[in-house]
Amino acid sequence: MQLLVQKYGGTSLASTDRIVQVARRIVDAKHEGYSVLVVVSAMGLTTDELLSLASQITEQPPARELDMLLTAGERISMALLSMALHAQGHAAVSYTGSQSGIITDTHHADARILDVRAARIEEALAAGRIVIVAGFQGVSPEREVTTLGRGGSDTTAVALAAALGAVRCDICTDVDGVYSADPRRVPRARRLSALSYDETMELTAHGARVLHPRCVEIARRFGVPLHVRSSFTSANGTVIGAMEKVETAVIRGVTCDEDVATIRMAAIPIAESAALLEILGKEEVATRVVVQSGGPDRCDVVCLLQRDDAVQATNLLRAHVESVGGTLRHDPDVAAVTVVGQGIQSHPGTVARVLAALTRTSVPVHLVSSSAIALTCVVSRSQATIAVRALHAQLGLDAPTVEGPAA
Amino acid sequence: MQLLVQKYGGTSLASTDRIVQVARRIVDAKHEGYSVLVVVSAMGLTTDELLSLASQITEQPPARELDMLLTAGERISMALLSMALHAQGHAAVSYTGSQSGIITDTHHADARILDVRAARIEEALAAGRIVIVAGFQGVSPEREVTTLGRGGSDTTAVALAAALGAVRCDICTDVDGVYSADPRRVPRARRLSALSYDETMELTAHGARVLHPRCVEIARRFGVPLHVRSSFTSANGTVIGAMEKVETAVIRGVTCDEDVATIRMAAIPIAESAALLEILGKEEVATRVVVQSGGPDRCDVVCLLQRDDAVQATNLLRAHVESVGGTLRHDPDVAAVTVVGQGIQSHPGTVARVLAALTRTSVPVHLVSSSAIALTCVVSRSQATIAVRALHAQLGLDAPTVEGPAA
Repeated sequence: MQLLVQKYGGTSLASTDRIVQVARRIVDAKHEGYSVLVVVSAMGLTTDELLSLASQITEQPPARELDMLLTAGERISMALLSMALHAQGHAAVSYTGSQSGIITDTHHADARILDVRAARIEEALAAGRIVIVAGFQGVSPEREVTTLGRGGSDTTAVALAAALGAVRCDICTDVDGVYSADPRRVPRARRLSALSYDETMELTAHGARVLHPRCVEIARRFGVPLHVRSSFTSANGTVIGAMEKVETAVIRGVTCDEDVATIRMAAIPIAESAALLEILGKEEVATRVVVQSGGPDRCDVVCLLQRDDAVQATNLLRAHVESVGGTLRHDPDVAAVTVVGQGIQSHPGTVARVLAALTRTSVPVHLVSSSAIALTCVVSRSQATIAVRALHAQLGLDAPTVEGPAA
Repeated sequence: MQLLVQKYGGTSLASTDRIVQVARRIVDAKHEGYSVLVVVSAMGLTTDELLSLASQITEQPPARELDMLLTAGERISMALLSMALHAQGHAAVSYTGSQSGIITDTHHADARILDVRAARIEEALAAGRIVIVAGFQGVSPEREVTTLGRGGSDTTAVALAAALGAVRCDICTDVDGVYSADPRRVPRARRLSALSYDETMELTAHGARVLHPRCVEIARRFGVPLHVRSSFTSANGTVIGAMEKVETAVIRGVTCDEDVATIRMAAIPIAESAALLEILGKEEVATRVVVQSGGPDRCDVVCLLQRDDAVQATNLLRAHVESVGGTLRHDPDVAAVTVVGQGIQSHPGTVARVLAALTRTSVPVHLVSSSAIALTCVVSRSQATIAVRALHAQLGLDAPTVEGPAA
């Protein structure tokens, strides 16, 4: 029997009614002939409520105890979902991250999966049971409870799908797929029926919230097909997998990330730029994009990074920048608009088209950086939506207008 | 360093403010020079809220999944308490039942502790940490999460105190000790400063809610001194331990249990009475008191049992009773009033004094049963408080009246 992994997020499990609904969908999958493994997040706002309790007690809870606290969330949702399946006449059994054999490193609050020892899950599946697993959580070799950080439940689902050789991993969520742009920002955004892993990586790395890049990376590495779809309908969503080269579409979508800031360091001696980036690396401040330009003696270095990290980065860098005769400017009011698609690599004119579209719309571009299949433009945050809509329209992504019959 | 075990119940942990307060008390114990292990219940109404979620999904949740669900409760309270201790500058670490090595049988919702493998706790205590343990929960040899049923957190605390050789186990609760009667029922009830295990067993078995008999039984078996005290003050409460024979008090207290019913079977052939009780035993219906009287051919058998069990017991017994020519009457409107004290054994006149007190107050007694140190009288439920007050006064238990100075 083929194994199907399904992951349900917090919104899909926000009430007992929704849990009963999700149980019905799982039973449908079982009736289609699959062996089914379900990974769940905590119900709705449970995690926020638990964080609020912790913050009432201390501003700096120890990470180990915070993990212990938060893992109560999935424990509740998985037990309730299992009960709902029993009530519908199906043998189900729920397992914590530890019981599921999700072995992680010891980095509390942001642990990495080291190994999946799923013997217990395999036994239960072989006995015909529906297995429910708590997402987001694992256990370290020292038998400490850990959590996987952002996107944790998706990561659990894909890691189990890979370890158990699932035919597919459904990411069931409150939207019905991956879109060519955020529909709240671009009314004419279209749902994409298929995407390659690489395109999905870029879309999610640059602001598409529907999936976490980490889970896409694991899916790509182990070749697990993903299906991002609605928890509330049986309609198809977006299938993500290894794509044939015959793909015709060149640009897939436009994303926008407003949680970013730039740090612009000017007149830096060429020999010093690596040292500056090392300062950030040592403190584990991640840079999303680094652009170095100018020379041959002095250059400008611009970093795009998470807005939350920018103040710390500024503090770390300023003294050093000034000691070598340079200047530093921190701009928190920016947004990163990214165009994703195989066409960026294969059609050298794409960069020009993107810049032309923004120029035509009078949006100044602070910074441009392109990789194989993604092109990021940093613009003022206040102009982000104008920029995304202009690119979506001018790169041919808008859904065709549906004309009603003449009155 | 001597080990002190403290158990805090749900009311003592009902809010984050109270958790911070409890943390202060724990720090006080640490400052007194103890090594401290704390066992916690779930916060306030958490367990009821989780049960309510389950009941919204199904009327008959599988016991395994219900245990999985409910154990989220202590997980939350222990992590928060550990955070509060960290915030007060003390190294603390929380462990689930499973991590604490509370090994139980597989009887979900009412598991028995088979073994305590507390190596991990011992290491943490040796490292000078305050250890917080989730009460009420354990893990079976099949690695399934179990719960211990009623009085579970007290049982966890005493079992750990026994296994680790604690000098004492404090049961910290919302009352300040064990009383000679329920103060809500008997205004002149007195707090008892000391009790023997046996007396405590009888008081708790017959309606005193402050402790569960099961935890007292373990404490007695392993000689763990208990101290029942308030979570909110540092005042002494009731110390429970092996008592010297020089005790002067003969009657300790009067308890009342209204959650009972009687089943009275009349004209039963003597040879059949054992068979009737076997019927109940087979279905695990517990009888609190069984009195058989009459003979030599036919006898009356009266059983006192939990009110919830009485309907089931009636259904199980009726056909058999009638087939042997007897009659059965189920009386749900009774209460069991119990007098507890070494004096019942050593002073044969006590039974007479008790019955005389009730007669003087015009409370008819439906059933009397006495053991070594407890004497239970079944009366009409409507007369229970009158009976308890009369016995409390006439057996010399009332607190002395405090006379104010003449005006």
